[in-house]
Amino acid sequence: MTRKGLIHIYTGDGKGKTTAAIGLAIRAVGHGFKVAYIYFHKDPKRWGYGEHKVLRTIGVDVFGFARRHPHFYKKLNPDEVRKECLKGMRFIESLYKNNKYNMIILDELMISLRDGFLKKEEVMNIMKTKPRGLELVLTGRGAKRGVVRCADLVSKIEKIKHPYDSGVQRRVGIEY
Amino acid sequence: MTRKGLIHIYTGDGKGKTTAAIGLAIRAVGHGFKVAYIYFHKDPKRWGYGEHKVLRTIGVDVFGFARRHPHFYKKLNPDEVRKECLKGMRFIESLYKNNKYNMIILDELMISLRDGFLKKEEVMNIMKTKPRGLELVLTGRGAKRGVVRCADLVSKIEKIKHPYDSGVQRRVGIEY
Repeated sequence: MTRKGLIHIYTGDGKGKTTAAIGLAIRAVGHGFKVAYIYFHKDPKRWGYGEHKVLRTIGVDVFGFARRHPHFYKKLNPDEVRKECLKGMRFIESLYKNNKYNMIILDELMISLRDGFLKKEEVMNIMKTKPRGLELVLTGRGAKRGVVRCADLVSKIEKIKHPYDSGVQRRVGIEY
Repeated sequence: MTRKGLIHIYTGDGKGKTTAAIGLAIRAVGHGFKVAYIYFHKDPKRWGYGEHKVLRTIGVDVFGFARRHPHFYKKLNPDEVRKECLKGMRFIESLYKNNKYNMIILDELMISLRDGFLKKEEVMNIMKTKPRGLELVLTGRGAKRGVVRCADLVSKIEKIKHPYDSGVQRRVGIEY
């Protein structure tokens, strides 16, 4: 029988949520796991995330949904973002069916929920229907209580100090 | 003039400190940074950390000091561990002189301090004498106040839920 895969959540307002998930991917790849990394609300065309390139070179499959977020694109229709997120949900379900991956990372999915692009039931459905052996990793601020209840491992990353607070801007190689 | 590198600390008792540092390394490598990853109190012979192998394949230099910790090796002489940690400190100073790296990660160095193998002045000296452009990343539980004061970015990873609490053991590909 395959080992039971757990559900992780990395939430909170401190730096380290996405990087913790990426680090997990690296560790898993080091043991021969097959990993998919799926990001939401991130726009590589705008920021050029360094991690995506490296993940691909080590054999992690990288996918993105709802890349643009109204926070950056004021004219964006929230219904469009919801549609994109739902497309992401259907894509994840298709991956569940293939059962090709040992670990799937849903980066910033907690934001889709927090900002109302997905309903709690929709996210919880993705958590509850995962294949038994799959390690599922969710990140993003503001994880809701029901979702936390549904997870096996939850780390809340608290911001004690952040250079943004003293006026340092987003830095290439560090924030993206 | 080179960009000022910051000092990060990832501390707290939740899962995600080492993985956050590894994720940072991946992101940095994606932008062409040269990264050194130096671990303390970890014994790859015992655990076979998946991340070390992958870091090496993407060009990160990996080093280890004071690999054995008295927590696992009861007969170990703490003076020996201190000597090993000091060797690590001298090694880091030699890397500062070469100025070959854009990012140096000191994984679990907060443990060396917490468990008395290094003095606060010794760790703070390593923080204060870093080359201006270097991004320095420290991890480990129980970061002391003086060290936190010395850092630019501090994230405390709080354990909300951890599978160890419900009896799940360390799992290959996830914990190491």
